[in-house]
Amino acid sequence: MPISTSVSRLQILTGRTSLTESAVNPFSLPLRVYIEDTDAGGIVYHAKYLHYMERARTEWVRSFGVGLRDGLSDNISYVVQKLSIHYGVPAKLDDQLSVTTEPVGFGRVWMDFRQRVIRVSDQKELASADVRVACIALDSGRPRRLPPAMAELLAHSHKPV
Amino acid sequence: MPISTSVSRLQILTGRTSLTESAVNPFSLPLRVYIEDTDAGGIVYHAKYLHYMERARTEWVRSFGVGLRDGLSDNISYVVQKLSIHYGVPAKLDDQLSVTTEPVGFGRVWMDFRQRVIRVSDQKELASADVRVACIALDSGRPRRLPPAMAELLAHSHKPV
Amino acid sequence: MPISTSVSRLQILTGRTSLTESAVNPFSLPLRVYIEDTDAGGIVYHAKYLHYMERARTEWVRSFGVGLRDGLSDNISYVVQKLSIHYGVPAKLDDQLSVTTEPVGFGRVWMDFRQRVIRVSDQKELASADVRVACIALDSGRPRRLPPAMAELLAHSHKPV
Amino acid sequence: MPISTSVSRLQILTGRTSLTESAVNPFSLPLRVYIEDTDAGGIVYHAKYLHYMERARTEWVRSFGVGLRDGLSDNISYVVQKLSIHYGVPAKLDDQLSVTTEPVGFGRVWMDFRQRVIRVSDQKELASADVRVACIALDSGRPRRLPPAMAELLAHSHKPV
Repeated sequence: MPISTSVSRLQILTGRTSLTESAVNPFSLPLRVYIEDTDAGGIVYHAKYLHYMERARTEWVRSFGVGLRDGLSDNISYVVQKLSIHYGVPAKLDDQLSVTTEPVGFGRVWMDFRQRVIRVSDQKELASADVRVACIALDSGRPRRLPPAMAELLAHSHKPV
Repeated sequence: MPISTSVSRLQILTGRTSLTESAVNPFSLPLRVYIEDTDAGGIVYHAKYLHYMERARTEWVRSFGVGLRDGLSDNISYVVQKLSIHYGVPAKLDDQLSVTTEPVGFGRVWMDFRQRVIRVSDQKELASADVRVACIALDSGRPRRLPPAMAELLAHSHKPV
Repeated sequence: MPISTSVSRLQILTGRTSLTESAVNPFSLPLRVYIEDTDAGGIVYHAKYLHYMERARTEWVRSFGVGLRDGLSDNISYVVQKLSIHYGVPAKLDDQLSVTTEPVGFGRVWMDFRQRVIRVSDQKELASADVRVACIALDSGRPRRLPPAMAELLAHSHKPV
Repeated sequence: MPISTSVSRLQILTGRTSLTESAVNPFSLPLRVYIEDTDAGGIVYHAKYLHYMERARTEWVRSFGVGLRDGLSDNISYVVQKLSIHYGVPAKLDDQLSVTTEPVGFGRVWMDFRQRVIRVSDQKELASADVRVACIALDSGRPRRLPPAMAELLAHSHKPV
């Protein structure tokens, strides 16, 4: 399903999530820590949290019926433009994590997310980040407008500033 | 430089390596083990050796003047078709490694390599693998003939069976 | 929970899976392909299948109540000793996969698995592998007997030869 | 060589780099982009830049004779505490990169680095980051003083504020 033609479906889908609900319970992806994620320090390698956060953003988008591969066929790609992350207690092998994604703002070609990595066992926050994602044309790499469906999705789901 | 038009340059380049020389001293890429390569078991994660080996194959090709990105623009891609690997003593953080690449056979659409990961400090073999790489069309994913330059390179550099 | 003292719990757990059932329906882990798993060829990077397979082995063990971190605290680690993999149709971004794990044999210090990566949409097999995993002492790296719980688990669940 | 006993060697080594020199020409690590670093968007995966930067910090330390594995045996580990990164033009397959590392400040248990990823062909800056690395005890994960050798190294090599 090309993103550009999926507005009506999104309108239906976004209709299911009220603004208040979304602000109170941001989208959350459950994740398990595997040995591949860890390093010789016995903890999850610091760059891996960026993977976790991108998976959560991807599933947040998919929860509204939009897949990334469709975007690529439509010459639409998304890239991280800037990112700021704080690390607290480290995640370890076998940990069950929950990664939240909250859209907190957007412009013509970008969207901002606030994300957190939570350890499920004690609800401790292990890391938090502010991430700006830009929309680009896959072929040229140049910035391009967010697809209407994505812009609408953001307009409906981000917390009021 | 498109691979398909680089035959003459390759002829010149391959002319520099005699068969005997290549058989005695296979191409070797020096590598350092970083914390990103290790896991909570304190050793290099087993899948990482496949990365090391692909880097060595890439540099072996590049040593003849051929880059992979040129291939992609020419709709040529290479994929691993099968692989068999034995692990011995594990590599550890800070280890200096040497990864060898020996072409040992090829067909119309594939090439076979014998590769080894050596620890430089004591020349111990840490892992060895047999790898078959197939040439495919980037867009369709279907097998395609090896580019003439690659076939010629293989014809000149692999050990006689 | 140390693996070595968990025999009775395992006996209860393994009691739930009859040999026939397990042979017909091997353990299967659902997985999603993320952008991090892909490469510039537009497909999942070949080494990533080894990650997928290790995740599936880990969840197969965990389904019997055994976590890897407990093993590490008990000086028990598991390493891949050899592995042979065939790649077919490549997995792509957004694909939903299913990774199976079948124990097919074991000795005093090792266990053999047969694993497959299936694309859920059409049940096509994308890759299959034979993997030998050895049990080692975490500190010395030397082979050690499989913990009794693991040996028992294997004795109950692998297909008869 | 344990970090804690390597002061005298470091004094000798640091003596070779004058403050002015280091400020003008920060430490730089050459790197090649491999297919494993790229994603289906055709560019280097954003988290990979964190790997590149950690490799450069590691080699910066190693250039003064200090290896990380020695630290681990001494119960010393280093973790990224916070990180802020801006991405510009993306790196692509086969690109030759140069990753700089400049220590810009340090405290009792932490050190701050300014790092840049440069494309060698045109000297374009592809990414830049501010990274705070903390020293911790490997076993407890609690902050611990920087080893004297590291503190001295930082005192001699960072740019005056």
